[in-house]
Amino acid sequence: MNMVEIITRKKLGYALTQAEIAYFAEGAAQHTVPDYQLAAMLMAIRLKGMNAEETTALTLAMRDSGDVADLSAIPGIKVDKHSTGGVGDTTTLVLAPLVAACGVPVAKMSGRGLGHTGGTLDKLESISGLTVEIGEEEFIRQVQETGIAVIGQTGSLAPADKTLYALRDVTSTVDSLPLIASSIMSKKLASGADAIVLDVKTGSGAIMQTLEESIQLGQAMVEIGALAGKPVTAVVTGMEQPLGTHVGNALEVKEAIDVLSGRTKGALLEVSLLLGSHMLVLANRCKTPEEGRGLLTEALESGRGLTKLKEMISAQRGDPACVDDVSLLPRSAVVREVKVGRSGYVAEMDTMALGLAAQAMGAGRMKKTDQLDYSVGFVLEVRIGDRVQPEDTLCVLHARNEEEADRAADAIRAAIAFSEEPVQAPPLWYAVITKDGVQRFD
Amino acid sequence: MNMVEIITRKKLGYALTQAEIAYFAEGAAQHTVPDYQLAAMLMAIRLKGMNAEETTALTLAMRDSGDVADLSAIPGIKVDKHSTGGVGDTTTLVLAPLVAACGVPVAKMSGRGLGHTGGTLDKLESISGLTVEIGEEEFIRQVQETGIAVIGQTGSLAPADKTLYALRDVTSTVDSLPLIASSIMSKKLASGADAIVLDVKTGSGAIMQTLEESIQLGQAMVEIGALAGKPVTAVVTGMEQPLGTHVGNALEVKEAIDVLSGRTKGALLEVSLLLGSHMLVLANRCKTPEEGRGLLTEALESGRGLTKLKEMISAQRGDPACVDDVSLLPRSAVVREVKVGRSGYVAEMDTMALGLAAQAMGAGRMKKTDQLDYSVGFVLEVRIGDRVQPEDTLCVLHARNEEEADRAADAIRAAIAFSEEPVQAPPLWYAVITKDGVQRFD
Repeated sequence: MNMVEIITRKKLGYALTQAEIAYFAEGAAQHTVPDYQLAAMLMAIRLKGMNAEETTALTLAMRDSGDVADLSAIPGIKVDKHSTGGVGDTTTLVLAPLVAACGVPVAKMSGRGLGHTGGTLDKLESISGLTVEIGEEEFIRQVQETGIAVIGQTGSLAPADKTLYALRDVTSTVDSLPLIASSIMSKKLASGADAIVLDVKTGSGAIMQTLEESIQLGQAMVEIGALAGKPVTAVVTGMEQPLGTHVGNALEVKEAIDVLSGRTKGALLEVSLLLGSHMLVLANRCKTPEEGRGLLTEALESGRGLTKLKEMISAQRGDPACVDDVSLLPRSAVVREVKVGRSGYVAEMDTMALGLAAQAMGAGRMKKTDQLDYSVGFVLEVRIGDRVQPEDTLCVLHARNEEEADRAADAIRAAIAFSEEPVQAPPLWYAVITKDGVQRFD
Repeated sequence: MNMVEIITRKKLGYALTQAEIAYFAEGAAQHTVPDYQLAAMLMAIRLKGMNAEETTALTLAMRDSGDVADLSAIPGIKVDKHSTGGVGDTTTLVLAPLVAACGVPVAKMSGRGLGHTGGTLDKLESISGLTVEIGEEEFIRQVQETGIAVIGQTGSLAPADKTLYALRDVTSTVDSLPLIASSIMSKKLASGADAIVLDVKTGSGAIMQTLEESIQLGQAMVEIGALAGKPVTAVVTGMEQPLGTHVGNALEVKEAIDVLSGRTKGALLEVSLLLGSHMLVLANRCKTPEEGRGLLTEALESGRGLTKLKEMISAQRGDPACVDDVSLLPRSAVVREVKVGRSGYVAEMDTMALGLAAQAMGAGRMKKTDQLDYSVGFVLEVRIGDRVQPEDTLCVLHARNEEEADRAADAIRAAIAFSEEPVQAPPLWYAVITKDGVQRFD
């Protein structure tokens, strides 16, 4: 086989064979195909597309380019959950303890966040002593004993994706549906899950900005799951504004604890219950999402969810005291309230800009080697549709110093638009996609 | 400026600005843009195209990425001629002496052939003692004194094209009209010509296999010339079969001498007269191609063309004795006649396969560093449309040994198809393209 011929066939718009796709993926993983040929191929895929069979073949070839975790020693159906990434999105820390408290094992491997805000691993590491660097054996034992573990990837998962992901960023080939779908699914399948719930974000802070594209991405990943023999449910949720009110690593841990303690309700809880309920359905714990929501609510109200979070923190050598006293979480030097300064209705938010404001404060990495400041970020006190007065609080900043607080205040103000006319709050979710089809809520 | 943004704009189908194209070309020449970004950009251009302004901007940026030859010390209008490359195509060795004999200076810089057969430089080097490695000063002096010189490129002409040309070959982006047109034209403009006649080949042995694509390529290059202020005429000629009867370096020199001596007529002479007549028109030596043909025929019949070839060989330190006695040219160990072996009509030839057969005999390079054997190749004794009998000669092989002769015989037989029904000979040329439009002959 010959890489130039494979590029030629894709360039001319033909569907590639399994063998051709495997050659490409293996070449990326082993660096036996030079980057310039990979780059030309990525652009040909971006412009000519891939059908469902090709996308699945690429997913499986990338999965098989490295280690595949074996979770068979954990009894039951292991359901993983993945989000395409949002701002103030802490659903994993809310739903994982609730799902585990319903008796469904949660064995989750997460990637590091490289983007405007930290990932789940970064948030967890803001808890004193907690480690996410746990070997596969200990990981499996922890899930066997406590029913829950959230750790960093072990081994070399999907190295072909690693090579291609880095190249896509610098060759303008990120925005390709088959490349996004296969990248996500290859890593999820390599993590060893039996079934997967996907949270596909849509809106200004999301990888897919239009609803139709987001639904198409969800459909593509559900189809890959079906062809790979793993049930997948995709939920399209809104990113017109941050999901939770808290943005920043320790701040998001605090919000998850607040939710699991029953002190906070709202969008983060609602979306966590939705995603969690579909996890319980895929795990055969119940028949319908409505039934699943009932089970999760029970786990929340009884405090079993909060207890499960504590158990996980302890098992991962963290200090669980912060669960009962959130003031033990890292705290920033400067805490400052920002007023709205005008009256009207909250009309629109640039979620991406809000994420970048948190990143600039030290909550997210600009480059791989950046050290995070777990304490920083902000708490948004308004949501789209809220009626506000000048003296209302817009947000509370948690910053390293006054100067960074000033800059964050300016950035956040610039990212939020107001209107004189009443504005309707956007829905929290738009669609649920399963192998049976798309159920729309818009 | 940022390469990812430039790639993004082309990916989305926008026309690039002059500044963006200059950034790309300069990045290629200086290697400041990594190969993987150049490759992604080349594929985006291949799939999204470029308009005439973009193609011209790329041509000029590539020309300006290196040295530009200054031929102003040579009086008169310097007309260059370029062929997109064919098999048995020795027009330069026929028309350059004839044009020079008509008083129009021929100052030609050629590239090395890297392909199925040798280039003009390789053919010239088969003449004992002749050198094509001549500095710019001596080159200009030779043209001033003799009116003719054909040498290798001096200095660093269009280094941006050099980088991109090498990448296109390994990223399946050769077959892009704007990339082909800008590559050819950047080198021609860097060679310092005032006007250019282009021989665009069409058919099985050509870069463009359909007539429409060949005409489009010609039009694109004529348009670049117009936008760059250099008159260009493009002639689309047929490559359904080798142009001359001789294929191989010394064999093609022999054929050129035979033509200039008046011993041989046929397709090579006809196409040389056509191209040469358009050169005389562009040089203002005459008003019409018909008038030009008359001048060239006079130069041929009077022997002044042959004398001019001798002068050039002497000036470039070659032994001109071969012009009077072609048996002094390199001769192969094995010379073998191959019979047709059937009766019928010559219907079709795979010109590319015939070129590859000559390459396998040692007449062309597989890789840059390959040494050529000047003596080898073959003389085809049939042309499409010929009626043949079994005992007729198909070709005469000139090979290094019996084994290579056997293989060449098989390859040549396989490349020629016969028919029971009469077959019409294809036209020698299909179109002449000038700034005034396309004149078609099909």
